[in-house]
Amino acid sequence: ALNREAFRQAVVNTLERRLFYIPSFKIYRGVAGLYDYGPPGCAIKSNVLSFWRQHFVLEENMLEVDCPCVTPEVVLKASGHVDKFTDLMVKDEKTGTCYRADHLLKDYCKDKLEKDPKLSPENAAELKRVLAVLDDLSSEELGAKLKGYGITAPDTKNQLSDPYPFNLMFQTSIGPSGLSPGYMRPETAQGIFVNFKDLYYYNGNKLPFAAAQIGQAFRNEISPRQGLLRVREFTLAEIEHFVDPDDKSHPKFSEVATLEFLMFPREDQVSGKSARRIAIGEAVAQGIVNNETLGYFIGRVYLFLTQLGIDKERLRFRQHLANEMAHYAADCWDAEIECSYGWIECVGIADRSAYDLKAHTDKSGVPLVAAEKFSEPREVEKLVIIPIKKELGLAFKSNQKMITEALEAMGEKEAMDLKATLESKGEAEFKVCTLDQVVTIKKNMVSISKEKKKEHQRVFTPSVIEPSFGIGRIIYCLFEHSFYTRASKDGDEQLNVFSFPPLVAPIKCTVFPLVQNQQYEEVARKISKSLTAFGISAKVDITGTSIGKRYARTDELGVPFAITVDSASSVTVRERDSKQQIRVNVDEVATVIKEVSEGISTWADVLWKYPTHSS
Amino acid sequence: ALNREAFRQAVVNTLERRLFYIPSFKIYRGVAGLYDYGPPGCAIKSNVLSFWRQHFVLEENMLEVDCPCVTPEVVLKASGHVDKFTDLMVKDEKTGTCYRADHLLKDYCKDKLEKDPKLSPENAAELKRVLAVLDDLSSEELGAKLKGYGITAPDTKNQLSDPYPFNLMFQTSIGPSGLSPGYMRPETAQGIFVNFKDLYYYNGNKLPFAAAQIGQAFRNEISPRQGLLRVREFTLAEIEHFVDPDDKSHPKFSEVATLEFLMFPREDQVSGKSARRIAIGEAVAQGIVNNETLGYFIGRVYLFLTQLGIDKERLRFRQHLANEMAHYAADCWDAEIECSYGWIECVGIADRSAYDLKAHTDKSGVPLVAAEKFSEPREVEKLVIIPIKKELGLAFKSNQKMITEALEAMGEKEAMDLKATLESKGEAEFKVCTLDQVVTIKKNMVSISKEKKKEHQRVFTPSVIEPSFGIGRIIYCLFEHSFYTRASKDGDEQLNVFSFPPLVAPIKCTVFPLVQNQQYEEVARKISKSLTAFGISAKVDITGTSIGKRYARTDELGVPFAITVDSASSVTVRERDSKQQIRVNVDEVATVIKEVSEGISTWADVLWKYPTHSS
Repeated sequence: ALNREAFRQAVVNTLERRLFYIPSFKIYRGVAGLYDYGPPGCAIKSNVLSFWRQHFVLEENMLEVDCPCVTPEVVLKASGHVDKFTDLMVKDEKTGTCYRADHLLKDYCKDKLEKDPKLSPENAAELKRVLAVLDDLSSEELGAKLKGYGITAPDTKNQLSDPYPFNLMFQTSIGPSGLSPGYMRPETAQGIFVNFKDLYYYNGNKLPFAAAQIGQAFRNEISPRQGLLRVREFTLAEIEHFVDPDDKSHPKFSEVATLEFLMFPREDQVSGKSARRIAIGEAVAQGIVNNETLGYFIGRVYLFLTQLGIDKERLRFRQHLANEMAHYAADCWDAEIECSYGWIECVGIADRSAYDLKAHTDKSGVPLVAAEKFSEPREVEKLVIIPIKKELGLAFKSNQKMITEALEAMGEKEAMDLKATLESKGEAEFKVCTLDQVVTIKKNMVSISKEKKKEHQRVFTPSVIEPSFGIGRIIYCLFEHSFYTRASKDGDEQLNVFSFPPLVAPIKCTVFPLVQNQQYEEVARKISKSLTAFGISAKVDITGTSIGKRYARTDELGVPFAITVDSASSVTVRERDSKQQIRVNVDEVATVIKEVSEGISTWADVLWKYPTHSS
Repeated sequence: ALNREAFRQAVVNTLERRLFYIPSFKIYRGVAGLYDYGPPGCAIKSNVLSFWRQHFVLEENMLEVDCPCVTPEVVLKASGHVDKFTDLMVKDEKTGTCYRADHLLKDYCKDKLEKDPKLSPENAAELKRVLAVLDDLSSEELGAKLKGYGITAPDTKNQLSDPYPFNLMFQTSIGPSGLSPGYMRPETAQGIFVNFKDLYYYNGNKLPFAAAQIGQAFRNEISPRQGLLRVREFTLAEIEHFVDPDDKSHPKFSEVATLEFLMFPREDQVSGKSARRIAIGEAVAQGIVNNETLGYFIGRVYLFLTQLGIDKERLRFRQHLANEMAHYAADCWDAEIECSYGWIECVGIADRSAYDLKAHTDKSGVPLVAAEKFSEPREVEKLVIIPIKKELGLAFKSNQKMITEALEAMGEKEAMDLKATLESKGEAEFKVCTLDQVVTIKKNMVSISKEKKKEHQRVFTPSVIEPSFGIGRIIYCLFEHSFYTRASKDGDEQLNVFSFPPLVAPIKCTVFPLVQNQQYEEVARKISKSLTAFGISAKVDITGTSIGKRYARTDELGVPFAITVDSASSVTVRERDSKQQIRVNVDEVATVIKEVSEGISTWADVLWKYPTHSS
């Protein structure tokens, strides 16, 4: 744990010093949970998002949309966020300071377990059990635990209030009247769901298809912790893949089926095993992963993350336990990345079934459904219930409407039973829930039959498979996975390096004139200009500092290639991690850098092609 | 005006039908002033932003940052937004419906002028004058006009309240306590200003440099009008170029100096002239544009907009009139684009002097300044005022502090006058504003002298030159400038075309198998796959519709190139606007499309290189 902290401190110091990120509004002492990306961080973010677009939107022909952050209440009422997007909070009864109730209980348990030498084995076991079920505790249970352990406000030792839910959405008001409440969206997904009808039409009324959105999301955390991992505003990249619930196969599944990586199925977690390597094809075949489409996205997410530079050994796909999963979800896997804070959920990949589209259908009255046209009409047997309104009216007067509705709402079995009773006995007892009353239905009051009908299509609510990416979390984990230190040439200093792959590196290349001299500077500017024209970000460093120091500076920004101009005709190109150097003609060098930056060639390719240079 | 409306309706119908944009939350009847970009709109936006990054950030080596939208009150208090970012509003006194006061007055005047045949020439002149000064009217003047003309609520004819200011920021609360007010940022600029110190350091403590930011901004408009032009949430791309106020030259100015385009200087507006072509080099030389840096950005903005496809003839740079400009601004030009709504401000290019950095210096106490190191120390004469506290204390007791401060605060002239009086008369009258009192200062109470000092640097607040781009407005104008109709082949239909340049086109290429046949479909998919691998967005259309209909569909999305697969070895490539066709080998075609899409070759180049094809 100490090593982890020291490592994290080293990474974070470098990140802050080189302006990868900046606590927002720092000159005003900042705001917890808000961070800026400074120039190199911003470039990395932009590269990660470009790659995301290429890897998902372009390669899968997804429909990308861009919806506002300001969202009217009705939408988030339908999605359940207004009622349920809460954390339990307690207040210091004297000062009013707010705390997350589960944080206080967690801290108490961990602290006891780590620091109390007199703790009995029974008490230790009890505290461990509490930690394990922390996320499942109700408001009452959490309150009872806090009281039971005598937990008080950490800063003042004052009494705490009972826990109560605090909604995590930033609230605002739309328009000048003050009468239209709105929220800053807590996820981008809802903007896609409400557009389902139009997007389905845009796709030629065909399933499956996926829509995607990149954008800001907001969560007004009670007390943000864990630096860049738990923030109040963040960039999400979300995919909603709409699919026929009866057919979740995926045409491109075979392209990922042989990929093998760490998976952590529910059963293994419950039985105390560790994550293990499974081929995703196997996981689907064995029913560990619910369906091909879910499996396909797990495979694609694996490729996405590892191509960014996430370490395969510190990446696992963990299945949600039964208690973590929403009741409607068919299956759910998190891509978790290990960093100094532990295993962090960075991508959630969930089969949410028809939940979201149904919720918005109900609330808006607009049917968000798909239709499968049959190539030829199919004959189906349909239950037909016809209440005879006249007879019902005579018998039940003002209750007629309720009884009619109850009759029409019968399921197949109930209706056929009623029919049988009416035919054998002439009348039957019938329970009307909305009246809380049992009435006697006579044979002449309702006609029940089964009819054969021809149907031309099947209308259904599509299932949604949702891969949702926390871009900031992925980037932070990438920072940790890319960071290492190595001794300086004279051995008296440890130098920081970020080993970003060229794909994500904020600057692809720095250009140094070896000495301060006009001719070399002109060559440097010419090379830089060619790189810019290619769309390759480059930086010229004409300070007179020693080449060693300039390399150290550029390594710390994760720049993969450095060009030293030491003649007017040819230059030295150095690769960051191997420190190998080659000699390339001035006229060729921009093309070489473009090719290795864009992945058209590898460093190994060019190393073979050009003479090496020893400094 | 009628033609304009009809044209707009045709454009907007196409945009909505093809999902370039969608009124947000449509299934819940939408929210005024909020729009989604659907798939083609979203792709165009993403292309425009990529080009902006290439054209500004990369080519000018700008420091791009990414700050949160949620902003604490103190920041926007310092910037003036909390106090002054308002519009004047009136309320229907019975229903409470809100209106923008200037809108009602404007509508009244326009309506009278257009529709009242009995309007006297004097009254007409008066109404025109009101329209001209509309933006300058105070709350009281606006109220008086509304009353004077008997203007009532448009929907109900009820009485209206007096105008009062409504703050246009969406307000929210940061954290759970409810005690930290925050706002959704109305612009991205403030995030850059508060980071000035860090960014200056990142740039090696050197001026000039520019920071840039792309992101969402929010304005809670009272009653949004003009469709996509006045919305409540929008994407801004802003540049803050920090420069020494004593040297606003620009090293690359010569690269734009000969560009000639429509400019509309302040004097020409006042004297009723029209915009005229001026070379930007001339405009700076003649002092029409305040300085080279401002002129450089005007030139770069011109290149940016015209390369996107904005019509040169419907683009002008209009200088702000004295009454439009903030008191601190040195000069300000808007890039205005003409569309069916008239001339629309799409980019503002302002020299804001030191205002923003000074405001945050004052509020935060953190000096946001730059320093120019002298190559050798310079000798300067400095005024030195030393109040003799002992004597002042004896004479003035508790007032000593105020008097000391007032003495220290004297300017050079005042101090030298006081010194002369003290030397000639031994004492002098001295006004202390903070005490509202005149006191008698004796010679022994203060020492005033001029000393020669060596200074090693000059410390100053940089000036800010701010080009600020309303991305949504630019895109909307681009839609209008790109839209045209042409007759279908059989002449019985008008077909819609968007003539987007390949740079911004949402999809670069569609691939059609000529007939539904497996071999052709496989070729189509193979070509599409190669294009995707190149990062070129392509779409395969395997519907059996006629080629003519498929061309019409793709023209309406502004797709510049279409490949028809009519053999297994070579294909037809058609250019959208000329409808010219060439024949290219299957193996070559992806490369050809990549080159014309990325601007490496033009259509004219490939037309010359490949055999033409007549259909």
